[in-house]
Formats: sequence, C-alpha cells, structure tokens
Amino acid sequence: MNPDNIRIVLVNTTHPGNIGGVARAMKNMGLRRLYLVEPRDYPNEQAVWRAASATDVLEAAVVVPTLSEAIGDCQFIVGTSARERRIPWPLMDARQCAQRMALASGQEQVAVLFGREDRGLTNDELKVCNLHLNIPTSQDYSSLNLAMAVQIVAYELRMLAVAGDGPATGADDWDAPFATQDNMERFYTHLEQALVDIEFLDPAAPRQLMSRLRRLYSRVRLDEMELNILRGILTETQKWVRRGSDRES
Amino acid sequence: MNPDNIRIVLVNTTHPGNIGGVARAMKNMGLRRLYLVEPRDYPNEQAVWRAASATDVLEAAVVVPTLSEAIGDCQFIVGTSARERRIPWPLMDARQCAQRMALASGQEQVAVLFGREDRGLTNDELKVCNLHLNIPTSQDYSSLNLAMAVQIVAYELRMLAVAGDGPATGADDWDAPFATQDNMERFYTHLEQALVDIEFLDPAAPRQLMSRLRRLYSRVRLDEMELNILRGILTETQKWVRRGSDRES
Repeated sequence: MNPDNIRIVLVNTTHPGNIGGVARAMKNMGLRRLYLVEPRDYPNEQAVWRAASATDVLEAAVVVPTLSEAIGDCQFIVGTSARERRIPWPLMDARQCAQRMALASGQEQVAVLFGREDRGLTNDELKVCNLHLNIPTSQDYSSLNLAMAVQIVAYELRMLAVAGDGPATGADDWDAPFATQDNMERFYTHLEQALVDIEFLDPAAPRQLMSRLRRLYSRVRLDEMELNILRGILTETQKWVRRGSDRES
Repeated sequence: MNPDNIRIVLVNTTHPGNIGGVARAMKNMGLRRLYLVEPRDYPNEQAVWRAASATDVLEAAVVVPTLSEAIGDCQFIVGTSARERRIPWPLMDARQCAQRMALASGQEQVAVLFGREDRGLTNDELKVCNLHLNIPTSQDYSSLNLAMAVQIVAYELRMLAVAGDGPATGADDWDAPFATQDNMERFYTHLEQALVDIEFLDPAAPRQLMSRLRRLYSRVRLDEMELNILRGILTETQKWVRRGSDRES
C-alpha cells in the first residue's frame, strides 16, 4: 500500500469547513493528496480553522475546474454513493473497497470521489468510477457529513496500513498496465461513434446503451493491451462501414 | 447486539459544535443515547447546527455533573485513549473493541467514554474503564477530532449490526442474471467469427487474441443483458461486412 498514490477528490463542496475537516481526517490517517473540483467557497478561513494541524494538506490541495482534471491520470477510481442507482454498479462497503484501493495503490494512481453535501455525485460522475463505495448507515438517517465519510474511508485504509502492507499482489501480477481514465474516455468516445456508424446505436434514441457498456468496461478494469485490442476491432469495423457506404453512394 | 444499550459519554467537551457532530455521527450509525458530563458551553446553537437532522439525539441527551452519574448503571465501560499510559491497561483497537461492546450490549449497559478535545480522559477516568480503546492514527498527527473519533467507533458498531443482518449488497442486487457458461461459449464463438469476418483475426495466425478477450470477459462476469448487447453489436457488424463484400464480388 502506498498512501501517496491515493487521492481524495471533493466535487463541488459547498461548506469550506468540511474541506478543513477532510484535510484533518486525511492527515490523521496518513493521507496527503487532496483535490478540490470547483469548490463553492474556497479558500476560506473556516477551512483553515477546521483543518487544525493539517493546514499543510490544505495548502497542498489541488484546485481544478473539472473532474477530469482531477482524475485523468488515475487507473482506479472509486465513487462514494448513498443512493440506489437505476443501473446497479459494482458496489462494495468501505472495508472491502479499502482493500481494493490499498492493493491498487502499490502500482497505480487511485482516486476516491466524494460528492456534494446535499446531492452527492451525479450519475455522470458515478459512471466514470470502477467501483462504487457505500458506507453502511442507519435507515433513520443515512446522510453522513462529508468529512465524516472521508474519515471512515481513510480510517479503513489506515487499518490496512497498520495491519502491514498486506498481500503484495495486484497490478504486479498483471502483464500490462491498467488503462488510465483519459484513455478509457477515448475508448468510450470511439465505441459510441462506431456503434452509431454500424447503426446499432440511434443517437436520437440512445436509451441506456452507453451506460450499460460503460458499466461493463469500468467493472472489468481494462489494461492497456486490452484497450488496444478493442480499439483495433472498432477501427476495423468502421472500415467495413465506410466500404459498404461508399459503394452505396 | 442492542444499540439502545450502548451510550456515548462525552466528558467536559469544550466546543459545542463537536457535541452536535457527535449526535449526527451517532444517529447516522443507529445509536441514540448521549450523555454529556459537565459540558463547557451547552446548550448552544452551534451544537444544533452541526447536529443537522439529529436534533432528536441532542434533545434527548442527558446532561450530568459527574462521570459516575453517567455510568453508574453500566456493566461494561470503555475509555478512548490516544496516549500511552504509564500503567498499561487492556488496550484494543476500535474494531476489536466494538465486537466486545456489541456482544455485551445484548445483556448489559455499555458506555464508551470520550474525553476533552485537548487532553482526553484523565488517568482517574481511565481507571474506571474495563477496557481502553485506541484508534490507529498517523504518527505525524495523532489528534483526532472528537466527533470523528465517535464516528469511527459508531461505524465499527454499525458494521457489526449490518453483518448480523447479512450482507447489505451482493449479486441479488444486480438487475439481470449473470450469463451461463453455455451462453458465454456461444458468445466467444460468435465473437471469434465476427473478428475473422472483419479481418481483424487471421485464423492462420491467431496469436493470443482470443485468449486475451476470453480473459477480459470472464473477468467481468457478464450478465445476460450485457451479453445480448455485445452479440447484437457483433450481428450488426457482420451485416456491414456482408454488405461490403457483396458489392465487391
């Protein structure tokens, strides 16, 4: 496990105090890398106050305007999610998920996404995730404070760090590096275009086709070689479409 | 486990906001019984604000002038402790300790004591405890916020409560049955034929292409709906190949 390969990404945080609380929770548990995607009110002295002795984490925080800038170089992306989704996504509790993250962090860049205080992450944001993380809560009151949610995830990671580095397997065992999020997005764009080309996907009535395919390929965590194979297939397919179409015209 | 037999006891809390944060953390995790021993500044609207939708826990909180009044009827008392003590005490981490508390709560009154923000519990207070609980933290910054510490302990109790009810998520949650092995084999046959058709796969020199694709799709565990989508894409692709070839011949 390498905590320096794990980043906490806060998306559109409303209350600056929560950002400070997150910084403290992170440092308490040995995490340091904080990304802030379009925070509502930041910098702000409330954040500094709540950070207590973790102002160094706050000062090193990377503020970016879009989510893709926060996670573009990441190979393993986890989204925290409270709600039930229309299309179920691979869902793990914080403990199981921490094990996956700890393992991945040995070789890869890992991001954990936390959404807005009132609405969490959007469906589009959740779709870029390999895995969804859920923290078990009481049905009477399931809305966790943002910094508390980060605290629990960071604590689970800490428990693993304390337990020892754990099994050293993971990406080392694999024969090709896992795809970055940027390359995954290029693949999805290519896939969508190819499906339109072969007239399998009607852009006027896309239904949930791309969502289902995104779920499939984010679930599997493609490596770069697999990604190249799939893109090669798409390119070859598109040549046949052009050949068929040229002859028609 | 009976959460109503577990009480959280805050001793001499300085910041009322922390009391509110504790109330929320408790309710999120299904705990309700809060005792406040000589709080410095309470009631206070900061507590109400931080409690969010857990004001009921706050309103039901029992304020007492001495620790013994908060724990007199308890059979199992746990004290949270960050520091090394001169006299070693039975010390457990939050996870092990939660198991003991959950077990005891079936028959007994259980109290978990949290001390002052700056100094924790005194030695005298720790001596009344059956067990000391420690939350693993980074050596760089070991001082947890009070509400965060309560959150972690309450979370560990919640994890046990959830485990009792069986796993909250799993394959039952999925929206389509997973594909049978027979259907997977039909898919691989179809995939291989389509790749030959589009001339991406050369049957005379197949290399490891199909092995890699099999590894990819067996890793993901396709559901029947995903399988149908992929086979639909293959069928559509093959139509374009026939269209292109027909016109050539």
